[in-house]
Amino acid sequence: MTELKNDLLLRALLRQPVERTPVWMMRQAGRYLPEYRATREQAGSFVNLMKNPELACEVTMQPLRRYPIDAAILFSDILTIPDAMGLGLHFVTGEGPKFEHVIRSMADVEKLPVPDPEAEMPYVMDAVRTIRKALNGDVPLIGFSGSPWTLATYMVEGGGSKDFAKIKAMAYGDPQAAHALLDKLAQSVTSYLNAQIAAGAQAVQIFDTWGGALSGPMYQEFSLRYMQQIVEGLNRENEGRQVPVILFTKGGGQWLEAMAATGADALGLDWTTDISQARQRVGDKVALQGNMDPSILYAPTGTIRQEVKKVLDGFGEGSGHVFNLGHGITPGVNPEHAGAMFEAVREFG
Amino acid sequence: MTELKNDLLLRALLRQPVERTPVWMMRQAGRYLPEYRATREQAGSFVNLMKNPELACEVTMQPLRRYPIDAAILFSDILTIPDAMGLGLHFVTGEGPKFEHVIRSMADVEKLPVPDPEAEMPYVMDAVRTIRKALNGDVPLIGFSGSPWTLATYMVEGGGSKDFAKIKAMAYGDPQAAHALLDKLAQSVTSYLNAQIAAGAQAVQIFDTWGGALSGPMYQEFSLRYMQQIVEGLNRENEGRQVPVILFTKGGGQWLEAMAATGADALGLDWTTDISQARQRVGDKVALQGNMDPSILYAPTGTIRQEVKKVLDGFGEGSGHVFNLGHGITPGVNPEHAGAMFEAVREFG
Repeated sequence: MTELKNDLLLRALLRQPVERTPVWMMRQAGRYLPEYRATREQAGSFVNLMKNPELACEVTMQPLRRYPIDAAILFSDILTIPDAMGLGLHFVTGEGPKFEHVIRSMADVEKLPVPDPEAEMPYVMDAVRTIRKALNGDVPLIGFSGSPWTLATYMVEGGGSKDFAKIKAMAYGDPQAAHALLDKLAQSVTSYLNAQIAAGAQAVQIFDTWGGALSGPMYQEFSLRYMQQIVEGLNRENEGRQVPVILFTKGGGQWLEAMAATGADALGLDWTTDISQARQRVGDKVALQGNMDPSILYAPTGTIRQEVKKVLDGFGEGSGHVFNLGHGITPGVNPEHAGAMFEAVREFG
Repeated sequence: MTELKNDLLLRALLRQPVERTPVWMMRQAGRYLPEYRATREQAGSFVNLMKNPELACEVTMQPLRRYPIDAAILFSDILTIPDAMGLGLHFVTGEGPKFEHVIRSMADVEKLPVPDPEAEMPYVMDAVRTIRKALNGDVPLIGFSGSPWTLATYMVEGGGSKDFAKIKAMAYGDPQAAHALLDKLAQSVTSYLNAQIAAGAQAVQIFDTWGGALSGPMYQEFSLRYMQQIVEGLNRENEGRQVPVILFTKGGGQWLEAMAATGADALGLDWTTDISQARQRVGDKVALQGNMDPSILYAPTGTIRQEVKKVLDGFGEGSGHVFNLGHGITPGVNPEHAGAMFEAVREFG
């Protein structure tokens, strides 16, 4: 394996000393980039793009050609596992992801397989290997998965949801079925992330997009517990280096202490949480990643620079900070504004 | 004026002793009730229903005929003020509220009038008077308004939004225009709520549905500051009694201390916040209202009863609690399940 030329991300995630604050951006390979839109058009659909390792590699590399970024993140979707379980993922324009089949009962859960990642999601591991070659050791590659709770919401609701009525009805009304589903998903995510690590992912992030829709006790029981199960089951060393694990629960700012107790190396913060207070609360247990409001990228570049500085100053001195947005960059952002953010992190961080 | 037969709500909101915990439910006059759907059909549209005082009174009274509820809440919409400002409110099926005209610049803001409530929203004050007659002193009537920030999001975005790109672009990129808009809205909300109080509202709630989409400093600057301005401008006594003010920021669980410092009498909590910890944090500054997850109403009634008890036990002994959901009841709920909740609050509270 090629020696890693820039390992700032890995060191910061493990709270080791760094010369400057590393930065990447959630959804950095995305629709705000004209070159991404061109590649997606070439692929014909989002699913085709995601399932083609060469094209997935191409869009993964695109932001790195534009900006001074300290990590690549695998281009994929959080719903690959339910798709591999046979639920039939597709995208409806303006409505987001949909599944042909939905899960509503213990009988449905029992029929679900735990997919073999290399056999049933080979396009993901092939993309990881292809991207690693393309990166040639420049920066580390982050792999990722949706959290069990987040995957379960889509599988039970059949797509996105505003109030999560069906999955919550299952969690409250048939908790055995919900737990059986979440356990199967935790097993699947564990082997999926381990396959990404074996294929070359040098850090992994678990995206818990919808954990914040739960009450505190429900979050612990139905989301965090299964993320902890995954953290405990990961092969956290590869190629002679530790593979850091990042947990990101959007809207999870009230539960950082519990998240830090899972054994994860780092927590992603959304922008509603004060990073300075977050650091006081978690102490030296975990590194922090985040957390500028993605909407600040709609502001003038002078404002973007000020807000970058606020986040960096908010974290303060010492290692353990990876700069990022508090959620993914949105499609309407001017790419030059993202550039202003990366430059400001390089300058102030 | 008729003597109030059940003033538990008013006493609890002012942290005065109560014999049992009062309860009402956000969106209690709503689509989950077949009698509501019938009245709405009769009205022809949501806007017609809202603008007809007799029909608004009818749907306000409907839940009180079914359940043991300790308060009525005016049936209206949070967007009456922007509509009275001339923006042209209408509803698109499946997409929610829309405005014909949107606000994008200081020039747009300068053209906006501060509406005279009795002259330009007479249907609201007529509804308040009609409902007070119908209630005949049985329980108090709660009036309400959207918060300036929440109204501004709809006025700038032109409707609902996922990421609030346009209003945040204004807040970061043209803060003078945003502040001018919010100040005009704060003035309008103040006179609107004062008109509701003069017409007979016995408590008022400010709904800050979208404050939780902001970072902490932005919340203080663009949402909370203007709610405080309203709180300071309200006529908080009427008919010889104090008129309590409730602030509810959905997703505001991280900022309760700041909310409690505005001078409001009570804070609404959504279900992501632990009510026991919330009480510790705000001490005896304010009463608390909430906070069962509305999705629990999809669970079996035995579970609903347990969860009601958890919220009541979470608040603990002493006065200063009004039981409610953490957000509005959703249209798909079985009315008998809402009944189980009300009965359980009566039994355990």
